[in-house]
Amino acid sequence: MSSSDIFIGETIGTAILILLGGGVCAAVTLKASKARNAGWLAIAFGWGFAVLTAVYTSAPLSGAHLNPAVTLALTIKDGGWNNLPVYWGGQLLGAMIGATLVWVVYYGQFHAHLTDPDIVGASDAQAAGSKAVEAEEKGAGPVLGIFSTGPEIRNAVQNLATEIIATVVLVLAVLTQGLNDKGNGLGPLGALITALVVVSIGLSLGGPTGYAINPARDLGPRIVHALLPLPNKGGSDWSYAWVPVVGPLIGGAIAAGLYNVAFA
Amino acid sequence: MSSSDIFIGETIGTAILILLGGGVCAAVTLKASKARNAGWLAIAFGWGFAVLTAVYTSAPLSGAHLNPAVTLALTIKDGGWNNLPVYWGGQLLGAMIGATLVWVVYYGQFHAHLTDPDIVGASDAQAAGSKAVEAEEKGAGPVLGIFSTGPEIRNAVQNLATEIIATVVLVLAVLTQGLNDKGNGLGPLGALITALVVVSIGLSLGGPTGYAINPARDLGPRIVHALLPLPNKGGSDWSYAWVPVVGPLIGGAIAAGLYNVAFA
Amino acid sequence: MSSSDIFIGETIGTAILILLGGGVCAAVTLKASKARNAGWLAIAFGWGFAVLTAVYTSAPLSGAHLNPAVTLALTIKDGGWNNLPVYWGGQLLGAMIGATLVWVVYYGQFHAHLTDPDIVGASDAQAAGSKAVEAEEKGAGPVLGIFSTGPEIRNAVQNLATEIIATVVLVLAVLTQGLNDKGNGLGPLGALITALVVVSIGLSLGGPTGYAINPARDLGPRIVHALLPLPNKGGSDWSYAWVPVVGPLIGGAIAAGLYNVAFA
Amino acid sequence: MSSSDIFIGETIGTAILILLGGGVCAAVTLKASKARNAGWLAIAFGWGFAVLTAVYTSAPLSGAHLNPAVTLALTIKDGGWNNLPVYWGGQLLGAMIGATLVWVVYYGQFHAHLTDPDIVGASDAQAAGSKAVEAEEKGAGPVLGIFSTGPEIRNAVQNLATEIIATVVLVLAVLTQGLNDKGNGLGPLGALITALVVVSIGLSLGGPTGYAINPARDLGPRIVHALLPLPNKGGSDWSYAWVPVVGPLIGGAIAAGLYNVAFA
Repeated sequence: MSSSDIFIGETIGTAILILLGGGVCAAVTLKASKARNAGWLAIAFGWGFAVLTAVYTSAPLSGAHLNPAVTLALTIKDGGWNNLPVYWGGQLLGAMIGATLVWVVYYGQFHAHLTDPDIVGASDAQAAGSKAVEAEEKGAGPVLGIFSTGPEIRNAVQNLATEIIATVVLVLAVLTQGLNDKGNGLGPLGALITALVVVSIGLSLGGPTGYAINPARDLGPRIVHALLPLPNKGGSDWSYAWVPVVGPLIGGAIAAGLYNVAFA
Repeated sequence: MSSSDIFIGETIGTAILILLGGGVCAAVTLKASKARNAGWLAIAFGWGFAVLTAVYTSAPLSGAHLNPAVTLALTIKDGGWNNLPVYWGGQLLGAMIGATLVWVVYYGQFHAHLTDPDIVGASDAQAAGSKAVEAEEKGAGPVLGIFSTGPEIRNAVQNLATEIIATVVLVLAVLTQGLNDKGNGLGPLGALITALVVVSIGLSLGGPTGYAINPARDLGPRIVHALLPLPNKGGSDWSYAWVPVVGPLIGGAIAAGLYNVAFA
Repeated sequence: MSSSDIFIGETIGTAILILLGGGVCAAVTLKASKARNAGWLAIAFGWGFAVLTAVYTSAPLSGAHLNPAVTLALTIKDGGWNNLPVYWGGQLLGAMIGATLVWVVYYGQFHAHLTDPDIVGASDAQAAGSKAVEAEEKGAGPVLGIFSTGPEIRNAVQNLATEIIATVVLVLAVLTQGLNDKGNGLGPLGALITALVVVSIGLSLGGPTGYAINPARDLGPRIVHALLPLPNKGGSDWSYAWVPVVGPLIGGAIAAGLYNVAFA
Repeated sequence: MSSSDIFIGETIGTAILILLGGGVCAAVTLKASKARNAGWLAIAFGWGFAVLTAVYTSAPLSGAHLNPAVTLALTIKDGGWNNLPVYWGGQLLGAMIGATLVWVVYYGQFHAHLTDPDIVGASDAQAAGSKAVEAEEKGAGPVLGIFSTGPEIRNAVQNLATEIIATVVLVLAVLTQGLNDKGNGLGPLGALITALVVVSIGLSLGGPTGYAINPARDLGPRIVHALLPLPNKGGSDWSYAWVPVVGPLIGGAIAAGLYNVAFA
């Protein structure tokens, strides 16, 4: 694969991933969405099938990593460090494009939600001048969860452990794909299995932190949240932002090491 | 494929698609249905597996486009403009047959629902003489959503953008299918992937407009809604009808262009 | 395939189908079940994956018809009328075994449910002596739905039309399987597609009658309901019993005819 | 396969199985989990996709039994009794590792849940000194269900019958896999089918006992529950512990016998 195919494939693929993944969070969260309150099962299937669609579409161009932790692990296993920044760059750019497209698709819903006094709260609306500081203190704005993950119980050690363990599960499944495909490559079935593994992680390990398991999935949309002109949007919770970046990268490296010891 | 195989395949396939897709909307909406209030996840899986059933059944005859936007995109990519009207004609006819079959299957439920004063509203029942005008003013009748899509927030620019973006996702996945299948054709696995892509779009991008992503899926049943002798059915919201036709066609063309630039 | 393989395969397969299909109805309905009130989506997936498990397990022995309407359609298409009674016999026996196993698995739950005065109703409990007649008049006992289907609105013409149309969808997909498999036979993927078609039919067309779409699935468990020593079980609604037998057989024949005209 | 590959594969695979399977129970049960109250459908899909992830990852090393009842049945069918203790040992160790990882991932949630007076109950909190005895009398502690199964209605005969019947369904599907794969081995599709069979069993037969259908799945986490320093955890319900061990082993043996008579 050429560098340009890798970059374009990862950009398109990660944009689709975040458009669909952020999209299901918007669909379930926002006022005036037909899918409002559809529940955690919708979130888990929504992110899983987002992975399916994104992997299937971008696999012919770039192999569909779509996740810096996956790229790190595959590079530890197979080499090719020169391509790592190309993958990571495309993934971050794609994630930012995808998050912006969520805002376009749900433009009216964001406005209706964030200007509803029953949702934002009368005091928040009054304190609009100081909202950035106040929301940052609370740790998360009312729609930040559509863009980035955040913990239910803020505890750096546990939150990091949760992201590491969840990413080890994801990346081990991705690495053993090479043993399962009998030389047929990723293909539709590989994309489907990966998607259902992500559904599984969401249902089972997503409860504490919202399962970033992918640094680009969390950081790119968080940057977009900070930049978008959303009313009463609250802070972008930068104090937590390192956890869903560092945790998945550690998890990817651990999975690659475990793979090399036990499976190779 | 002969023209008659294309026409028959698209007619049968789109009829099954709309029978099952409109069917799940009826099942979840109507009084005296066992599936009433089954929720958005049921809608999204219902439409997705409708695609699976319809694509799988009609693929051997016509290749299972079942969507004018898909036909447009594949024709931009591969040529064959002579067949385009055959595809489009079969798709529109099939959609109308499918919507009529939904009415047959849920005949008693439609009547029970539309004549229930708690649902239709006492004033609507009294104003039966002027109901068409009044419902048209409200923008949608009480069961129009079983036939056609409508926006939660009526904004032509956003609604069009949502339909375009959602259709680009669908059609890009359909076009890359040719790169993923290793020469095996669509097959069961391709039908399954397409179906789950549609589930994904429903969960993630369906919140604002109800995801037509297919001109025939929306226009055919809307015509049938206008023709059927349903009591208190309300208007067919023709002022919105152009959005789910134009948006998906634009989306299909953009996806074909993007494919030709990035993937071909 | 030998006659004994056919008979044993259909008996085992249909027993698994009804054990799992009736099981999900018991799980969602009965008091003291962990899955109580899990909703229609659970019913639809439960029956679909019941088909998956049953078809996958019995396919190597008998080809996994598991449904007299499927056997009828395949016999119209391919011949082999001598085997039809062997298939039908195994299917009916298997359905009765499966329904009995549901009773074994949920033995305590049936008893707790049917002797709970809040569920059965104080008057029903008092009128235990005349319960069979009374329940027959009401048209269905309180747990008959775990065994057999029944309509929400009792209208023989609509109920029959619903069962016919739903069965045409199922059988057309089964018949086109032979065009989709490229000579690989049913296999795991064929079993999966069939299962998801059944999920689709359940979500979309199950609202009015509960989608029997299979004479053995309805008649066998109804006989078992009539025979089992369940307290306060109510009548077995024999006046409706012909609809889910005749409708699916007509649907299977129509599908075979449509297949021979359009696909063969 | 070497003994060390079998042991490592079964340990890793069963650890993933219980991490994800116990994880979904924690996610749905515990306070301060984003997935709280997601319902039985989430439990059934969560366990099914846990099987998918675990089987897919460990299949290249050990063939992915991950269940002593499956190992027993395959050994009855194919021989290889020398390897049985290696499989069983890895499975039990893996299950204990997986249950411990659930505790790590949900560490804060366990504490918040078990120290909430509204959940544990004021009297339980006061009686902390005698809690082990009291909880044992009640038969189950407030979070034991995250680790091990327990019956809704305690009746050894019915509970055992339920576990036996459910395991026969599982193991028959596993054994016929060898007839369905056309010599391609388990593979991604075999893993997917097995996973959906487990979803089916969960939806349909899980209501009475919570479907252990795997001695290691129940016993390993129960031991971990007894050892972990959880506050107010209640007893580990050892009086029931034999049912989910003995039932699945009997079920596996019956399935192997049935297979040898009907399918071999």
